[in-house]
Formats: sequence, structure tokens, C-alpha cells
Amino acid sequence: MVVREKILDMVVGCFKRHGAKRLDTPAFELKEMLTEKYGEDSGLIYDLKDQGGELLSLRYDLTVPFARYLAMNKVKKMKRYHVGKVWRRESPTIVQGRYREFCQCDFDIAGQFDPMIPDAECLKIMCEILSGLQLGDFIIKVNDRRVLDGMFAVCGVPESKFHAICSLIDKLDKISWKDVRHEMVAKKGLAPEVADRIGDYVQCHGGVSLIEQMFQDPRLSQNKQALDGLGDLKLLFEYLTLFGIAEKISFDLSLARGLDYYTGVIYEAVLLQTPAQAQESFNVGSVAAGGRYDKLVGMFDPKGHKVPCVGLSIGVERIFSIVEQRMKTFGQKIRTTETQVFVATPQKNFLHERLKLIAELWDAGIKAELLYKNNPKLLTQLHYCEDMGIPLVVIIGEQEMKEGIIKLRSVASREEVAIKRENLVAEIQKRLSES
Amino acid sequence: MVVREKILDMVVGCFKRHGAKRLDTPAFELKEMLTEKYGEDSGLIYDLKDQGGELLSLRYDLTVPFARYLAMNKVKKMKRYHVGKVWRRESPTIVQGRYREFCQCDFDIAGQFDPMIPDAECLKIMCEILSGLQLGDFIIKVNDRRVLDGMFAVCGVPESKFHAICSLIDKLDKISWKDVRHEMVAKKGLAPEVADRIGDYVQCHGGVSLIEQMFQDPRLSQNKQALDGLGDLKLLFEYLTLFGIAEKISFDLSLARGLDYYTGVIYEAVLLQTPAQAQESFNVGSVAAGGRYDKLVGMFDPKGHKVPCVGLSIGVERIFSIVEQRMKTFGQKIRTTETQVFVATPQKNFLHERLKLIAELWDAGIKAELLYKNNPKLLTQLHYCEDMGIPLVVIIGEQEMKEGIIKLRSVASREEVAIKRENLVAEIQKRLSES
Repeated sequence: MVVREKILDMVVGCFKRHGAKRLDTPAFELKEMLTEKYGEDSGLIYDLKDQGGELLSLRYDLTVPFARYLAMNKVKKMKRYHVGKVWRRESPTIVQGRYREFCQCDFDIAGQFDPMIPDAECLKIMCEILSGLQLGDFIIKVNDRRVLDGMFAVCGVPESKFHAICSLIDKLDKISWKDVRHEMVAKKGLAPEVADRIGDYVQCHGGVSLIEQMFQDPRLSQNKQALDGLGDLKLLFEYLTLFGIAEKISFDLSLARGLDYYTGVIYEAVLLQTPAQAQESFNVGSVAAGGRYDKLVGMFDPKGHKVPCVGLSIGVERIFSIVEQRMKTFGQKIRTTETQVFVATPQKNFLHERLKLIAELWDAGIKAELLYKNNPKLLTQLHYCEDMGIPLVVIIGEQEMKEGIIKLRSVASREEVAIKRENLVAEIQKRLSES
Repeated sequence: MVVREKILDMVVGCFKRHGAKRLDTPAFELKEMLTEKYGEDSGLIYDLKDQGGELLSLRYDLTVPFARYLAMNKVKKMKRYHVGKVWRRESPTIVQGRYREFCQCDFDIAGQFDPMIPDAECLKIMCEILSGLQLGDFIIKVNDRRVLDGMFAVCGVPESKFHAICSLIDKLDKISWKDVRHEMVAKKGLAPEVADRIGDYVQCHGGVSLIEQMFQDPRLSQNKQALDGLGDLKLLFEYLTLFGIAEKISFDLSLARGLDYYTGVIYEAVLLQTPAQAQESFNVGSVAAGGRYDKLVGMFDPKGHKVPCVGLSIGVERIFSIVEQRMKTFGQKIRTTETQVFVATPQKNFLHERLKLIAELWDAGIKAELLYKNNPKLLTQLHYCEDMGIPLVVIIGEQEMKEGIIKLRSVASREEVAIKRENLVAEIQKRLSES
């Protein structure tokens, strides 16, 4: 939990640095609001039992509830972040970092703006967070739904199959092109030459030069949609260069993203494996993803008014797994509490003094603990401090009481100094501010 | 949301000051785990639809899941806090601060310890939080389930009716004794003289002297259970005096607390109304509550092993309502974002420079924003800062570019100073640390 909290603090800190305000929506939505938003994954939605009242479902992500919120409240412009739980009916396979309940951290920009500026900011945020968390090297794959659709069209995929083929492409990070091609031809009934044409494209990835190359591509350059997408990607890379992150971004024609609601730029960050990790088949999939969804808000608005949106989601559960795994590997121990001072006594019948003293520390804002025993042994008390990583111990006994002093002990160095009783709080605060 | 965050930070800060670690449990529990834990309120539990797999329900509070967690993981000792959502099937009546989904903040101490030390700490925590939030004057009512049961027994309530009578007593903060008495006699079939005997007790409240008085009470002093409860309450008040909070605590024989699982000390904090509030019938009920539940963990353990627990729950939703209401009354405005610097330009075609500059600020950890427009008007940009309460504006234009400087403007004073481009980040950080 401590690791989680630190990671979340860092993520939220970045969202705030980019001017987002926090928004919270309820855990359940009307069932009808969630239907037909998630494509093949709709079966993973948790429904509530009909106990009277509306039919409700648990939210599947934070994006659809955000769009519903914007439409319901007629908000035309908003930059918000949301950290919250979402639920999916999956069998938990912890190795991959997928659970039935998990935390999502989303940042979204809603509103009509000049093209690609908010999109570039989303990618900048992903870079800041992934660099900040020091997860190792990463790359963000970028594509555009319109480029994908254009590519399908010029390759000769019938429009009715766009969706199915798109889902297959999405599997390319897990299975090989050969297997994907086989499924396209054998299961989806695509002509082999159509599949091969797709294959030529989806194996391409690169930077701005690849965008230029696609602009010149004899087939793709004939497609209006694809050209729109490529134009936006070119502008995006211009901004990414200004942000100093272009070398982290890869235009990748195999990036598809399964969800139905994306309409423009899409992106997904993956950690680059070290050779050692690749051998252990240490695969965590994507750690952050997102894209542009310009039509989702309109689906919730009675009059169909659109609010263009772009956003990102940080895969914090996977990041938690990675950091935990790494801590295990390096044998790191993390404190689970923040207690600064422990109140101890070597003598019997000192509970009253300990209680008075600890109340004084609490009231001064100092994080303090004692054992809930009338007469604990000194050794037990000191061991507790070592186990819990508490740095300071205040020791009070009969002799100290008589002299009006108190002993302050450093747990690490075992050094003890005597301090006037009335200076205790000040001395502790001084020590804590120094450390 | 900003207000909520500040309140939650303050509450969590207090929990950490008392050495608690954070724990998080899933939003749903097995349906069977929640049954027969909440008495009359069980009908308010949200069940999930049976879509295959286990029958699940949304958690109703954070206490039962905590007890289930302790039993499942065989944890014998733990001090934890939990901030999370819980769900209840109520028609939302926002005036009273009750929703179908709401946030709970719980602190609990599990383990076998010397009596009343953890209980006293729970009350200390409630005092620290309620004082810290400056909600106005408050009092914490304290009673003990065993005193209640003993009282029912000596008054002549048949044991089968303890539960129903207890629930009626719990209503005494909403309806008068006269009405409660009527329900006892007319609806629950209690003999009028039994009801009158109860009435004599439940109208008593006071401090340590009332405990002493009850020890001498001819009827109550004959009941073993009641004496046990009174003995613990006496010890509790001793510790509360050492903590310096005894004057905030009132032994109140009318405090019942509806939930089934309490076994010992129970408590509930209420805000004291000013005469003006009383006239507006500004009633928010209790703002924090809790008690001892020594048998709940055993109910989840296959062998029935008990882990005694004591805890408290802060009614943060009600506190949010109160603080919001007060802010409305005083017309206070709160910033929804934390942006420190806005990057502006008075000229056209300066998007590239703005993007480069803002990336530099973000990379230095400065919270910064710009408008997502190629050519925004300067006035629009300055208005945005005023609306959002952003304190500083960085202004870049052709002249500044030539001279290698930048203008830094204070939004409040409208003062502008020229700064060397390379000193910008340092100067902003200096200004921010001073303010």
C-alpha cells in the first residue's frame, strides 16, 4: 500500500502540474450508458442485481463516465483527472497485473481547441510520469484511427470487417504476424493478398520520416481519411519535438487499441525489456495508453452535441506489480507506517505518564506510538521500534521524572541524550526537520 | 472536490500520526459475508447480478470487510486506516448528507491489549480530527453495549425484545422520549412501567460522576454485565483525562448505535448547534462514530478465533456538506486547480516558443498552463489567469526574444519585470517559495 501511495502521489502530482482539476464520478452507471461503448469487451461489465429502481452496472473504465458527466452537465471544456476503481469480470491472473477490481488514473482534456496541442500534452504527461517513476526505458507507440481505417480501405478490406480486423491487429503485441495473418484469412475470410497488403503496413514503425513516407505511399495517399490522420500526426510530431520527447515516440502502424470510441490519434506506452527480462518472459504489456475520442460525449447528449476529447490512462496496477517485483528482487524493505517517535518506559506503572506524554506529541503534530500494555518490557518496546523502522524513542522513568528530564534515543545509533522535559517537543521537531 | 481533498488529507494525516498503515479491500464481498451483520439495515445492501461465479455484494461499510480480511489472513494485530467508497440502497436526501455512494474514513485497532488503551486512543483521534477541522463545538457521547443490555435486563425487558428496544433508543436523537415510549408500549408491547424505568435511565448523561452514580444504582449494580461495562467506562475516563479530552466526552445512557456487531464501548460525536443553527433546523446528525466489536472477526474465522477490535469512522460526507454550506454562506471561493504559472504571448505565431517554454517549466516541476490555441488574444489569456486564480504569467514576444529576456507578471498586482531567459525557472521558483 505504501508503494502504491507513492506512485499515485507522483502520478497525481504530474496531472496537477498540467493544470487538471480532480473529478469523481459514482462507481455505478445506468446499464444502458455502458452498452455498445466497449466493443468485444462488453461481456466483462459487472451488472447490479435488479432490486428495484434503475438497472445499474459497475463502471468499466473512467472514460465513458467522464463523457456521460460532460454531456449531462453540458460542460463544453474541462481538464480533469480521476483516480478511481474500475471493475471487470476477468479471472484474476496476477502475473499479468490484471485484476477484477483495479485502480485507474486518467487525465483528459475536453473541448474544441486548435489541433494536436492537447494531444501533444497528453503524450508529454505520459513521458513525464514514466520517466519520473524510473521504470526503465520505454517507448510510446502512436497511430491514428483514420490512418488505420484508410489502410484497411486501400488494402481492400470490406468495411463490414474493419472492426474484426482491427481487433486482430491489436493482438500483434502478443502473437506474431504469421499467426495474425492466419486468423485473418482462415477465420475472418480475408483474401490472402489483402492480408499481405496489411502485413506490409503493420510491420512499419518509425518517426517523422515514416509519416512522410506514408504521405507518398501510392495507395494510402489516395485515401482522404488516411491523409487527415497523417496530417495530424505530422503536426503532433512537430509539437513533440518542441516538448523534447519526439525520440520517445514511435509512429507504429500496428497499433490498433481495441476500444470502440477512439476517433483520431491513439497511443500506448510499453516498457522496453532488457535482454535478461526478455529471457524470463517478463511481459507486462502496456503501462499507459489513450487517444482521441471526439464522438463519445455526443452519444450521451440528447441533441448529439459533440465535445472533442483526448486523454490518457496510466496502468498503475501494472506499474505497482513491476515496482513490487523489483523491490522483491533487490530485497528492499519499505516502512508501512510513518511513526516518528515511540514513547517507552523501562518501569512498571508508568502508563499514565506515557499517555500524558504521547498526547502532548500528538497535539504537536508528531507521529507517535506506544504499546497498549500497562507494563511492557523495555526490550519489547525497543524491538518494536526496530521492526517498524521508528527512528526515535522517548524514554521516561522514575529517575527522569525526579530530575524533570526525559531521554531521547536514536534507534539506529542507540545513542541516548537527556533533555529537559519542557524542551522535548522542540528538540524532537528539530531532529525530525534535520533528518 | 478541492474541499474534499483537504478534509481527507487532514483526516488521513491524523490516522498516520497515530501509527496506522493504509489498507485497501475490494469493493465487493461475497454476499454471504455481509448477511446478518447489519441488523435492520441489511435491506440496504447492493447485490451484484448473478453472471456466473460467486454471488457478490457491494460493501456496506469498511468494518465488516476489515474483520473478514483479518480472519482470512489470520492477522492477530493491526492498526490500519481505510479511506474508501461504500454503497447503500437509499433514496439520496442530500440535505442530510446521505447518498447511495459515499466515502468512509475508518481507523481501527485489532488485537488483544490491556483494556481501554486503544479505545481511549480512538476517542483522542476523533477529538483531534473534529478540532482540526474547526467545525465548531462538539461532544462525543459514550456508552457501552453491556451497560445497555444490563439496563434492559434490570428494567424488565424480555431478552427477545432487547434488539427492537435498542433500535428505538437509537432514535432518541431524532424523536422525543415521549414518542419513543409510545412506540415501545404500543408497537413493541412493552409494559408501561418497564418503559418508564428505561426512561429514567436514558435521560441521564454526564461525566465520571454519572458512572459512579450508576455503580451505586440499586438495580443496575445487581447486573454483572452492566458492572463490567461501567468498570471499563471508568477506566476509559481515566485515560481520557490524561489525554486532556475528558470534558469533550459525555457518558450518555441513550446512546445505542444500531449495528449488531458492537460488544463493548460505543461512541458518537455530534456537533453542538449554535442557537441560529437550531432555528434553521440545520441538523447533520453524527459526524463520527464507532465502538468496540470483539466478536466480528471470529464470525469469519472457520475455527471461531476471536480478534478484539475497536475503531471509528469519520462521517466525511456530512463534514463535506457542512464545510460547503459554510463556504456558501460566507461566499468563499476556492481554486479548483493548483496552476502556478501561465505561459502567454501578445503576438501571433508564437505557439512554438510557448510550447518550448512550458515544457521547460513542467520539467522543472512547475505547475503551468497555456491556452490550446495557435493565436490567442493577450486579454483572453490574462482573463483566464484571473478566473482560475493563477498567480504568475510568463509573457514572451518578439521584442523579448530578441533581447533574450522574458516578462514575468504578477496577476494580482499587474506588475511586470523583465528577466533573463536563462534565469526564468530559478526566478519563478524563488517567487513561489516566497509566497
